[in-house]
Amino acid sequence: MNTLLLRQVAIDTYKENVAYLHRDCKLYRSEGFQALNKIEITNQENGQSIIALLNIVDDDRITAPDELGLSEQAFAQFGSLERIPVVVAHAPVPDSIRGVHRKIAGESLGLEDYRGIARDIAGNRYSKIEIAAFLVACSELGLERDEVLYLTRAMIETGRRLDWGEPLVVDKHCIGGVPGNRTTMLIVPIVAAHGMLIPKTSSRAITSPAGTADTMEVLAQVELSPEKLHEIVRAQRACLGWGGTAALAPVDDILIAVERPLLMDSPGQLVASILAKKVAAGATHLIIDIPIGPTAKVRDRKSALALRKLFEYVSDQLGLVLEVVFSDGRQPVGRGIGPVLEARDVMQVLENDPLAPGDLREKALQLAGRVLEFDPDVRGGQGYALARDILDSGRALAKMQAIIDAQGRNAGPGDPGVLRHDVLADRAGEVTAIDNLQLARIARLAGAPMDKSAGVDLRHKLGDAVKAGDPIYTIYAEFNADFQFSREAAELESGFTIQ
Amino acid sequence: MNTLLLRQVAIDTYKENVAYLHRDCKLYRSEGFQALNKIEITNQENGQSIIALLNIVDDDRITAPDELGLSEQAFAQFGSLERIPVVVAHAPVPDSIRGVHRKIAGESLGLEDYRGIARDIAGNRYSKIEIAAFLVACSELGLERDEVLYLTRAMIETGRRLDWGEPLVVDKHCIGGVPGNRTTMLIVPIVAAHGMLIPKTSSRAITSPAGTADTMEVLAQVELSPEKLHEIVRAQRACLGWGGTAALAPVDDILIAVERPLLMDSPGQLVASILAKKVAAGATHLIIDIPIGPTAKVRDRKSALALRKLFEYVSDQLGLVLEVVFSDGRQPVGRGIGPVLEARDVMQVLENDPLAPGDLREKALQLAGRVLEFDPDVRGGQGYALARDILDSGRALAKMQAIIDAQGRNAGPGDPGVLRHDVLADRAGEVTAIDNLQLARIARLAGAPMDKSAGVDLRHKLGDAVKAGDPIYTIYAEFNADFQFSREAAELESGFTIQ
Repeated sequence: MNTLLLRQVAIDTYKENVAYLHRDCKLYRSEGFQALNKIEITNQENGQSIIALLNIVDDDRITAPDELGLSEQAFAQFGSLERIPVVVAHAPVPDSIRGVHRKIAGESLGLEDYRGIARDIAGNRYSKIEIAAFLVACSELGLERDEVLYLTRAMIETGRRLDWGEPLVVDKHCIGGVPGNRTTMLIVPIVAAHGMLIPKTSSRAITSPAGTADTMEVLAQVELSPEKLHEIVRAQRACLGWGGTAALAPVDDILIAVERPLLMDSPGQLVASILAKKVAAGATHLIIDIPIGPTAKVRDRKSALALRKLFEYVSDQLGLVLEVVFSDGRQPVGRGIGPVLEARDVMQVLENDPLAPGDLREKALQLAGRVLEFDPDVRGGQGYALARDILDSGRALAKMQAIIDAQGRNAGPGDPGVLRHDVLADRAGEVTAIDNLQLARIARLAGAPMDKSAGVDLRHKLGDAVKAGDPIYTIYAEFNADFQFSREAAELESGFTIQ
Repeated sequence: MNTLLLRQVAIDTYKENVAYLHRDCKLYRSEGFQALNKIEITNQENGQSIIALLNIVDDDRITAPDELGLSEQAFAQFGSLERIPVVVAHAPVPDSIRGVHRKIAGESLGLEDYRGIARDIAGNRYSKIEIAAFLVACSELGLERDEVLYLTRAMIETGRRLDWGEPLVVDKHCIGGVPGNRTTMLIVPIVAAHGMLIPKTSSRAITSPAGTADTMEVLAQVELSPEKLHEIVRAQRACLGWGGTAALAPVDDILIAVERPLLMDSPGQLVASILAKKVAAGATHLIIDIPIGPTAKVRDRKSALALRKLFEYVSDQLGLVLEVVFSDGRQPVGRGIGPVLEARDVMQVLENDPLAPGDLREKALQLAGRVLEFDPDVRGGQGYALARDILDSGRALAKMQAIIDAQGRNAGPGDPGVLRHDVLADRAGEVTAIDNLQLARIARLAGAPMDKSAGVDLRHKLGDAVKAGDPIYTIYAEFNADFQFSREAAELESGFTIQ
């Protein structure tokens, strides 16, 4: 038999399966496989197979000639079974790649094409370069709006789909790109305090300094079993968790892992990605927040309108009630950037602390008001006032505390990072621009979101008058290397324009 | 100091630098780097830096927490020095990526854009997914002919350029896609016997069953130092080597490593790739062979004409004298597919063996005739007869033997692989089609070109009458697994149509 013995190679290859074959393997000619990039590995005992990129090993301690090594994520897909017999074969080119080539050649694809592509991507049959080819082929000039609909449908179909058994399941989503901006953690308790169902599962940050899940984790457990999440939602009408999203539109996660390092975010992919996750999560009514600003994802009103139309077209076809809100994306929202600092901002707003950042409060109330108006019993235009009443009365805070207790309370914000550096204004004047991308980058370099207490705390915002030498923001870090990286980046370009 | 100690991880990651950092590294937060894909590693002793993809290690034996591991190719770029101190930083996004994004958005790029892209790719600053993005952005509908010219220029400039000090340096190149077809090994001795300078450095196969270098290696050494190659060329007016091409238009090799597994081969990339390599190798006069056939790279005369125009436009701008020849690409040329079998075909033609494949001889004479007509002393239309005289008289064979001796003689073709299987006609009739892609695939699965004696030997060609059960071709292999792969592929689809 042409079998090799499976073993784990303790290397984390981040969302790409990698297989390790010894150069002197007597059964298979390693070089023969390598240039074609992918091999298919089949468990001889049960017929299960996966596709992996091939690396060739010259060290028996990593993989011996009679073994086949798998990276951690690939090994887990085989149930983490050591020394089972496997066979190796040339990976077939996935059928759906033909569709990708037709797309590259400028054709429009149909629903069946997108279904094939989504199935093959979900089945880990695409390499990263094939995914990159698909994303580029679909970008900017590439996707007609019906194609965005097909892609969304195909992504929903290739994963689980939650059903909450109620006619009104609300959600909100910001397309991203503005640091801070932790409105979700305010909107959820306000809306749930009113009694609406808002089962929010948020993402962790991938390339931004904090996601809602990272920030919520400062206050409470977020990795909960699906059963536990459902129990909390039944009791509280809400949750702020992370668990289980991997099974919802899993293709989306795989695409994002390639999109982000490519710095790509085409409108078609953006809309399909967001709507697939929301529909799969069981939402029936959705508010989309599109921040507009020179360093936000959407730079001007014209692009924002085009994006709104695309959201509306696809959601209408899917039977999802959706409204788009444009917001001010010229600068970060709130003061903190990074999990601990953002959690502090959120709690200050909930506690009606006079020091609470006004812009975060105001934006959260606007959005929460729009969500509340999905309730047939709330009169049009009254949502904002209702949201404000819920917040000012302390009912939102009480709901947040109940959610935190239900999920499992953590220590809370505490102090930001032990390493601390003030970035100073280089001249006197008025703050006329703040670069979202640069501030996010500095916070990320400082260690956020991995180090919860790392990040950037803004001391001034747009329109503030500053003197030369005034601190404009403070960098917090835990690790010395990160501290250096972020200071150097701020030194080179602070992200603030003072005139 | 934030330094780690460099070590080699004995893994061959095939043209992508990979770095290995322990998850518990105390200096750097491994997860912080991973999602962004790339890190920059700098040798603290001399300031040299490289860019690598990051993998995270959970096993001290592969990389300890105070070490930074590098895959074999990355380690070689650092001069293979163990335990030198290195620092790690977030890799900057290469400036030229902006050009790639503009290209994705549908813009045309200028010479400076392509120069930046070529420099960054040559400097290993692009990840494979970034290269894939560039290739897709440039494909099919994407490149204007001036852009092809700019890309070609940029690729030439980022490598070495040979100068042979003579006004007439000839070369020939087939765009590929037709198995067998080993005309180069006939044209070179014919042309050199006439006294023209033809310093041929050929490639090894990447995804085809044999390249000229693989086949020549059956007869002679091909990995020669640049000095040795020059010495042979001075003495023989020719060589058939492989060495040194890596330094000529190195961007081309990097692009091809991504293009092939993507099954991409857009006209713009094809023309830029071929012309950059040829100009860098010092050619002044070039014949391009474009085989046309339903399973060749170029399917019809219309596409072939468009490709010819593109070759002509770019070569004219570069001052390269170029002629395009269309040839019959409906089936493999010669009988053998795979290094040993193709070397046998070539030697039969040179030896004027009555068993020699007539189509290979005829095609080589046609092309050699066109090359000979680059000689101002050869009258237009007389090249073919001259080539035939040189071949028939044994002068081409004598020249080939001299080249083989100069490069270092190897054992010669010998017998094909020990494992042997005849594929039989499933019905009686006439052979009406032979699928180049399928025959190449079967030969490749059988082990070619890694196993020199593996491959496919054709017993019948287009137009032959066969009886049911007649052998149509024989598969040869060395390894049992390869033998199975190729037999299964032939079983599923023989590649022959008999009607």
